[in-house]
Amino acid sequence: MNIEIINIGDELLIGQVVNTNCSFMAKELNNIGINVKYITVINDDEKEIEKSIILALQRADGVLITGGLGPTKDDMTKHCLNAMFGGTLVENKSVSDHVRRFFEARNLPYTSTNHSQAMVPDCCEIIFNHFGTAPGMVFKSKELFEGKPKLVISLPGVPFEMQEMFNDVKQILIDHYRPQTIIHKSIILSGISESFLSDKLLNFENHLADLNKQNPERCFSLAYLPDAGMMKLRLSLHGGQRAIEETEFEQVYSMLRKETSAYFVCEEDKNIAQIIGQILTAKNQTLASAESCTGGNIAHTITLNSGASEYFKGGVVAYCNEIKNKILGVKQDVLDNFGAVSEQTAKQMAQGVLKLYDTDFAIATTGLAGPNGDGSDNEVGTVYIAIATKNGETIVKNTCYKTSRSNFIDRVTTFALSELLAILR
Amino acid sequence: MNIEIINIGDELLIGQVVNTNCSFMAKELNNIGINVKYITVINDDEKEIEKSIILALQRADGVLITGGLGPTKDDMTKHCLNAMFGGTLVENKSVSDHVRRFFEARNLPYTSTNHSQAMVPDCCEIIFNHFGTAPGMVFKSKELFEGKPKLVISLPGVPFEMQEMFNDVKQILIDHYRPQTIIHKSIILSGISESFLSDKLLNFENHLADLNKQNPERCFSLAYLPDAGMMKLRLSLHGGQRAIEETEFEQVYSMLRKETSAYFVCEEDKNIAQIIGQILTAKNQTLASAESCTGGNIAHTITLNSGASEYFKGGVVAYCNEIKNKILGVKQDVLDNFGAVSEQTAKQMAQGVLKLYDTDFAIATTGLAGPNGDGSDNEVGTVYIAIATKNGETIVKNTCYKTSRSNFIDRVTTFALSELLAILR
Repeated sequence: MNIEIINIGDELLIGQVVNTNCSFMAKELNNIGINVKYITVINDDEKEIEKSIILALQRADGVLITGGLGPTKDDMTKHCLNAMFGGTLVENKSVSDHVRRFFEARNLPYTSTNHSQAMVPDCCEIIFNHFGTAPGMVFKSKELFEGKPKLVISLPGVPFEMQEMFNDVKQILIDHYRPQTIIHKSIILSGISESFLSDKLLNFENHLADLNKQNPERCFSLAYLPDAGMMKLRLSLHGGQRAIEETEFEQVYSMLRKETSAYFVCEEDKNIAQIIGQILTAKNQTLASAESCTGGNIAHTITLNSGASEYFKGGVVAYCNEIKNKILGVKQDVLDNFGAVSEQTAKQMAQGVLKLYDTDFAIATTGLAGPNGDGSDNEVGTVYIAIATKNGETIVKNTCYKTSRSNFIDRVTTFALSELLAILR
Repeated sequence: MNIEIINIGDELLIGQVVNTNCSFMAKELNNIGINVKYITVINDDEKEIEKSIILALQRADGVLITGGLGPTKDDMTKHCLNAMFGGTLVENKSVSDHVRRFFEARNLPYTSTNHSQAMVPDCCEIIFNHFGTAPGMVFKSKELFEGKPKLVISLPGVPFEMQEMFNDVKQILIDHYRPQTIIHKSIILSGISESFLSDKLLNFENHLADLNKQNPERCFSLAYLPDAGMMKLRLSLHGGQRAIEETEFEQVYSMLRKETSAYFVCEEDKNIAQIIGQILTAKNQTLASAESCTGGNIAHTITLNSGASEYFKGGVVAYCNEIKNKILGVKQDVLDNFGAVSEQTAKQMAQGVLKLYDTDFAIATTGLAGPNGDGSDNEVGTVYIAIATKNGETIVKNTCYKTSRSNFIDRVTTFALSELLAILR
């Protein structure tokens, strides 16, 4: 059983908005054993919408659509679906009550444009939108999958509205399709390139191929996903019955873990910041950050995880020498003689914030994100990271990332957190 | 002239990775007047790749492909393209020299798997990959566009490798297709909902329709893009000749600016943090941040922009009461009597960091990101933001965002920066 996702919106085709809806939906669908076979992005054009839905119904077993449900002229999805499924727009009382309350709660009048959100095709089921005004719609197509109609489900494009409605969507899909098993597990490795890893895993991959030959009911696969300073490996199993396959999957996964143990960082379902958080919480230890070139991104990455306040006391963003000296206590002669981007500065930043925040661990970064240099001999991309611990040890590492400013910030964040994780282990 | 983008990768279809490649490419293509008509995401499967390329060559004038170029078994793109275009894989000397140097520089041996990256189809042109080992490939198809072959261009899926190669890609496309005019301009508004804005702009939209009737050579369009706490409006013009259309476009854009002036925040090409940076740089003024619930995201958002060190001295992430008190100087009785999430705490955080960092402006946030409460009466989602200025004024505003943790952080960041911008203006 597989789905095609169609994301509608000119903003996606001109790159104004990053399409996070499709990754959210794909992840959620995978968790319930539904495979996403295609993702198509098209513009708000009635003909394109119709053509894409027809194609999707030919090549997939169901269609999920986002976008084009606003009350404005450039929103075509509802009218297009209404025409395709031969319906009539009628007022839905529960939706119009909701939309009216939605505007009343904001002290805004209820206009005819608002009211148009409550007009829905009479040939679909409604999915209630608690956070917005455009309801979701579920249509049953004439095309069949295992004797049942293929579903076409339309959702709003605003991410938090769509996300809040997605539990309902999953339940509808499970009830209708009774999806088969998909199991994924990923691990993150560091310190090995894709080509070396591939050589190292040759026997393992041959073993997977043998297993697939022995039982063609289900299929193992392995994917390599290089990422900033990391290598993600994903083991997947499609098909078969979950109760039976899970045991075999775990055996194969253990084998993969063993083969790659020298490079293992974490399981991907938990990101590095989460693993660090788990370890610190378990040990009842605390962390602080002192950031120059990462400008707050390490603190942000850590605090994206709920429960971060258990172990993260906070940090200092020291974006100028004055603050490095005055607040973090980096000595003026160190800044004068070695510069802000130096081993000595990184070390004193980490030690300074450790003392100031009275934590067990501290993490510090100083580097040249670019695109412009700082007038010193340092190349753009140079970075020093330091980890200080309460027992008085401080390690400093350095590297150089020649890349864009935002990618530099991401890579330094990953680099610093990986080094902290290595020490915590 | 329009392009279809095909992104290849299982990781995109299971939602493990957000597809930033397509938004980057779409934005860059738009800037040179190339329209992206479809974006298709498919898995690493030779048959799917072939089918999708054939479909793309039917419905678009050129095809850009990312992904599936690694040296491992799950990377199919090169072999598929080689077969489709009837080529033979041969060693490319400049690529093999580069790959060899790439591994030597990292003190790694040059294996046969690495060498496979230097084997390229003899029926394509190469685009050099300075940051990685898989070269880009340009194929000419039998399908024609205005008498010239449609191009099929394959690029690596690793974002920073692809991005670095994209200048070459743009030059190839410009030389080959001589694209027509596309002009976009966007503005960000706040304080008005989509439906009210749509009512307000009815006459303006009718005017656009009239203009399009008068001269069907080119077409104006307006799109509404609601975003966290904001409304983005995008005016576009397709077709015609740039030299002639630019003047008319500017006139229509001025009209739109006038109609929406009461809600205007900024032009979208510059984000709020950039506009703040411009104003502060021009006035030679400085800024600091004191963040609790946003956990460093405000500092991160500001420092993503190069040149931020001109006006941003840094900030404090105060993720516990102890730090709010000890470093930012929030009075203990304020924390005891009003709590960390309160008007009084926000105010003293902003005032504290203003003094500590000796800046002209300071921005502070304290709130309950959730999903868990803090044991107080505050609802999850409650937030107070404060802006302190050197002349002794401090404003505090509060609101409540019932949404996911990461969306909460983004919305509070936008809210706080918008309030700062309003004061700067």
